[in-house]
Parts: sequence; C-alpha cells; structure tokens
Amino acid sequence: MTSHFSFQVEHVDASSHARLGKFTTPHGVVDTPAFMPVGTQGTVKGVDAGRLRETGAQMILANTYHLALRPGEQTVAALGGLHAFMNWDGPILTDSGGFQVFSLAERATIDETGVRFRSHIDGALVELTPERSVAIQEQLGSDVAMVFDHVVALPNEPAVVADAMRRSLRWAERCKTAATRIDQAQFAIVHGGLDAALRAESADRLVALDFVGYAIGGLSVGEPPSAMYAALDVTTPLLPSDRPRYLMGVGRPIDLLEGIRRGVDLFDCVMPTRNGRNALAFTDAGPVRLRNLQHALDRLPLDESCPCPACRHSRGYLRHLFQANEMLGPMLVSVHNITYYQRLLAEARLAIAENRLSALIDQRRKGWERDEGTNVE
Amino acid sequence: MTSHFSFQVEHVDASSHARLGKFTTPHGVVDTPAFMPVGTQGTVKGVDAGRLRETGAQMILANTYHLALRPGEQTVAALGGLHAFMNWDGPILTDSGGFQVFSLAERATIDETGVRFRSHIDGALVELTPERSVAIQEQLGSDVAMVFDHVVALPNEPAVVADAMRRSLRWAERCKTAATRIDQAQFAIVHGGLDAALRAESADRLVALDFVGYAIGGLSVGEPPSAMYAALDVTTPLLPSDRPRYLMGVGRPIDLLEGIRRGVDLFDCVMPTRNGRNALAFTDAGPVRLRNLQHALDRLPLDESCPCPACRHSRGYLRHLFQANEMLGPMLVSVHNITYYQRLLAEARLAIAENRLSALIDQRRKGWERDEGTNVE
Repeated sequence: MTSHFSFQVEHVDASSHARLGKFTTPHGVVDTPAFMPVGTQGTVKGVDAGRLRETGAQMILANTYHLALRPGEQTVAALGGLHAFMNWDGPILTDSGGFQVFSLAERATIDETGVRFRSHIDGALVELTPERSVAIQEQLGSDVAMVFDHVVALPNEPAVVADAMRRSLRWAERCKTAATRIDQAQFAIVHGGLDAALRAESADRLVALDFVGYAIGGLSVGEPPSAMYAALDVTTPLLPSDRPRYLMGVGRPIDLLEGIRRGVDLFDCVMPTRNGRNALAFTDAGPVRLRNLQHALDRLPLDESCPCPACRHSRGYLRHLFQANEMLGPMLVSVHNITYYQRLLAEARLAIAENRLSALIDQRRKGWERDEGTNVE
Repeated sequence: MTSHFSFQVEHVDASSHARLGKFTTPHGVVDTPAFMPVGTQGTVKGVDAGRLRETGAQMILANTYHLALRPGEQTVAALGGLHAFMNWDGPILTDSGGFQVFSLAERATIDETGVRFRSHIDGALVELTPERSVAIQEQLGSDVAMVFDHVVALPNEPAVVADAMRRSLRWAERCKTAATRIDQAQFAIVHGGLDAALRAESADRLVALDFVGYAIGGLSVGEPPSAMYAALDVTTPLLPSDRPRYLMGVGRPIDLLEGIRRGVDLFDCVMPTRNGRNALAFTDAGPVRLRNLQHALDRLPLDESCPCPACRHSRGYLRHLFQANEMLGPMLVSVHNITYYQRLLAEARLAIAENRLSALIDQRRKGWERDEGTNVE
C-alpha cells in the first residue's frame, strides 16, 4: 500500500473468519467491518451530511456513472472535489460505473475497449473505458476508486461469466496502469459468478497485481442468498488477509452478518435508504411496514434504544407522514435505517472482539424472522 | 389572560410602532416579533424537529383543517397530542380551518351554523363549525387556538366583505363560549378586507370580547402589498397594546418588516418552505434561483454567515441537487429559508431594542430589490 493507506487486522473471531480491523485513508480511519451508505448522486438520499455523521457512518460511497453524467466530474472538481461537494470529510469510495452500466445504461455495447451506452437521463451517447473510469474517479477525488469491471446477471451461461471475468481482469490491469493519484487507493473486483474455479482464477490473477483492497463483485445480481454465501466461502480464503475485502452492493442485515462471518470487511447497499423511502423500517424484531394499519395508534417508537431522529417520534406519527405523503417520512426512516445498519455493524465488531459473532448472528436471525406482513388501510 | 399566558411589551421602537415583547405560553416563551414556520400536516415540510429548533424558531403553526382530515384529531390525541406527535416541545398555534376551507375545500357551503365541504383528499363530506373547530383544536392540544372565521377573497363586493366580517364576529363569540381548556389561549381574528370602517367595527367588537391575542386576517388574499400595509395602518392602532398581534399568512421578508413597523408581533407563512422546495433561496442580496445556470460552478454558499446545513455547501452543489431531483435540495433550501426568516426577525428585534428599525428596513429593502431573474439551463 502507499503511505496514505493501511489496513490492520486487530483480531479474528475465534469461531469464524470474521475480522476486526482498521482501514486508514487520507480522510480518516474506518473501523471494520463497516457499512458504507450509498450517496449515488453525491447525496445519501434524504439525509444531510450532519445527520449522516450522527448515524455512526465513517465511510460512504458515491457513483462514478451518475456523477459523470450529472453534474460531470469537471464540475465536481471545480467545486472542490467530492468531499467538499458533499460536505463529507470522511473517507469516500467511488464505484467505477461497471455495475451502473449493467443495471441502468440503455443500449450498452461492450467490447475490449470499453462500453458505449445511452445515458439513462437524456439518452446522450457516453463511452466508459477503464482509463476513463480511472480519470473520472481521480477528478472526483475519492479515497478509494474501484476498477472498471464487466458485470453480468446471474444465472448466466458459463462462457459469458468466464468471458466477463477475464475481460474484467484485463480491465483491472489497465486501471492499475492508468492510475496517477497517490492519495487514491484502487480496489480490484473479483468476478466469476458462482463458479469456484472462475472465482479462484480471478482472485489469483488480481492478487498477483497487488491492489490496496479486493472487492467481491457480481453477486446480489439475481442469485439466492445461499449461492452468494457459497461464492463467498470459496472466494474470501483466496484473498490476502492483510488487505480489506469489500462485498459490493450487499445487502440485507443478515447478508452483512453472513459476509462478516466469512471475512468481509466492507459493505455498501441502497437497502436502508430505498426501503426507508418506502416506509419499511429495520428493527431487531424484523421489518416494520409503517403503512400498516396496526401502527396508526402506536405510541411506541421504532426502537426505544435507537438514538436517531425518527425514534424521537411514535410509529403512529411516522405512519401519518407516509399516509400524508410528507417528505419527512422518507427522511426519518432513511436515517433510522442507516443508523440501524451502523449499530448492527458496531455490535458485530464488539462480538468479534469478544469471540461471539456466531451467537450474535443466531440471536439476530431469530428476531429478523418475524415479519408482520402487509396490512395497509 | 389566564395564568398560563402573558404578554409583555418590553420596548417600543422610537421611530415606528414596532414592539419588542415576550409572549409566555405553557410550552415556553416566544421573543416577539416572531415568525412561526408552518407545519401544515404536523410537519414543517422537509425539516425534522431538531433541525427546526436549530433555525431559531420558537413557535410553530399547524393546521386544524389538515389534521382533522388526516390523521384525525382523535389519532393525534391518542398519540399524546400535537407536541408529542411532532416532537416539538415549544409553543404551537393551530389555525382554525377557516382559511383552508376558503382555499382548499371543494364545494363549500357556508351558513350561520358553519361550513359543509368536500375533503380535498378523498371528497368526504365534512362539517366545520365554530364549536367543532374549538373542539378539534382542544383535542390537538395547541397552545394557541384561532377562532373559526369566514375568509373571503379580495377584491370583493363591500357587502360580501361586511357580511363575512360580521359572521366572523358571531363565530368568534361562539368560539369563546365553546372553549374549555385553560392551558389553551384563543386569538380572535379581525376582518373587514381593505375597508377601514369595517376593520374598526371588527376590532372594536372583538376587543370588547377580551381575547388573549388578536390576529389580522383576510389579508394576503389577492390584494397588492401597499393595500395590505394600508389595512394594517388602520387596524393595529385599534388593538390593545398589551395583547399579541398576529398577521396571518404573511409573507415575504419585506412584508414581515413592514408588519413589524406597524406593530405586528407574530407572523406565519409557507413561503420559506414552499420556495425552498422550488429552489428559491432567500438572501440579503435578494432571492437566489438555484436552478439558474450561473450557479453551476459557484463555490460560494448562499450566505457565508448563515449557520444552516445548506450553507455548509456550495451553490453549485445545491444546484446539482435540484437538477438531479434529489430530495436533499428541497430539504436544505427549506431549512436555509427558515433560518433566514429567523435571523431576519432576530435582527429586527435587535433593531427595535436599539431604536433603528427603519434604518434596518431601508437597508434590507435595498438588498432585496436585486433579482437575478431566471436563466435556467
């Protein structure tokens, strides 16, 4: 690693592969395992920077694809870079755009050079290559840049998965060559779908290139959770133990704990905010669907022990906000859900330190299995 | 006044009728002149209770009409009353519903008993009478309840304005008779349009009934600002100097200062939040339209001296949020605008204490006259 970055594993859970660590970046230290809230367009939807800090989040994610299309990386740079732009002085990771091309771009054509696609905003023709993704991320000024990768859906033809994995390897090498900022780390992305041999080939080749961190990509793209866990089982042991491991785009609370159990250090997902906007709140007793009639007269908060602004109100009030289409509903439940994820990760870190992660997972899983179902007025 | 309420005028500006006062309520003291942000449906749109406190707001407004329709005053009462519901422990004033019937209700029919109308939400038939408005406001548990009044548009036939004013007088008397809570004050509402004689008749009759406070209603309903100021000129001198005076639904920053100059103590208006949602920010140098192209690369905040969360960001960032349809844009500019109004009122209070309100008004008016116009990308 360059002198700007370091990663220390401070303890490994006695009963699992879970690690307690510290990831040091130019914008501060991240206690791992960590969950990064997603600020796609340079804002975590519905949460201002101050409230975001109060959730306990230390590191956040922003998107190369979205910011390059709007307002453009030159504009972000002219406005002082991503940290000043977002008023976030902690570490920021930028996704490379690979996943967004896969999920959002219209009429994308992929060849060895890169990807040409139509912007989902205005239909403009855009080209993204490994070199261009690196250049954009350097303009944005994130602490961690992801290599540009070729993401495919699962299930898929073995040859398609293998081709995309090998193209991602060649693109990772091009990204490494293109990088110029010593204050920005690059994370590689292991691909290979659910195929253990392809995952091994990808991991081995990327490890040989010596990246600051390693992501596990191409999961949570249509496969069942058990398949994702199995892919993690075969992938994380192949990654160097002295580098941070990042499971991209995952996931539900249980997925985070199952990832942590398998040695993952970093996560990101839109679930806390996307669900929050749709009136679904995470709690230890399972998801609460705030539009349900049963909450109309409920004076209790979502969680009496939660310090977030939503939990200063009754469930009945939160329900009213959604029924009345008030933006405060999405705002409050988004910040609650991010707080929930941050507190869960803090619990996991404590459990690792005390060698009882498996017990925590069993306990939480039991609570989450409850589900009130849907009973809307 | 009952023992729960008191109003002290501490100083009157040497060059105008502006008063510096303290209005004491069961939920705390309000420094007047004061601006009350509007929490129509039990939330100031886009601003959580903590952020709202940080703007300097001491007292807020909620709406009888909206809350009675949704979630219903019984639900608010079951959830602990309006203060607990909104998590606002400061004073709250509730509008009586008179203005909303005038502006929102469909197919309203008015007679001496009250108003029957169709809910703007679901078309349900609803009846609002003076007694019912009082009962709803008592269930909501606001500190200040407004009498139920008959609002008419301006300009209008003299006979229509006179009839509505006299009906409002009879309804005010019925409201006074119906009130039962000693921890809730009732404010009367002076009507009479732009007619000095009608205003005088309304004020005299209401003063004889001895209310805790007096509102000036039926303004900002279509007439030019100069006509509104003229109506204030003839009305405020008729109100007892030892009772708070409240100019309802007003207005622009200059309207607040012109009202203060004429001896008004309380204001409310949706302008800060409604404009904030539409990317218009108030500053001492006039309104800033954040969608304008000229702000795209502007690294300066709206106001370097402003402590609000929006002013931790560049104008370029705020513009990006609106261009990208991010809810953080409306959130940040709403809280900025409320902060702007609160700081303006604090400046006005200081200027009154120092006998220089007129100088402040001249200075501010000069700044506000600048307007960048509209120049959207």
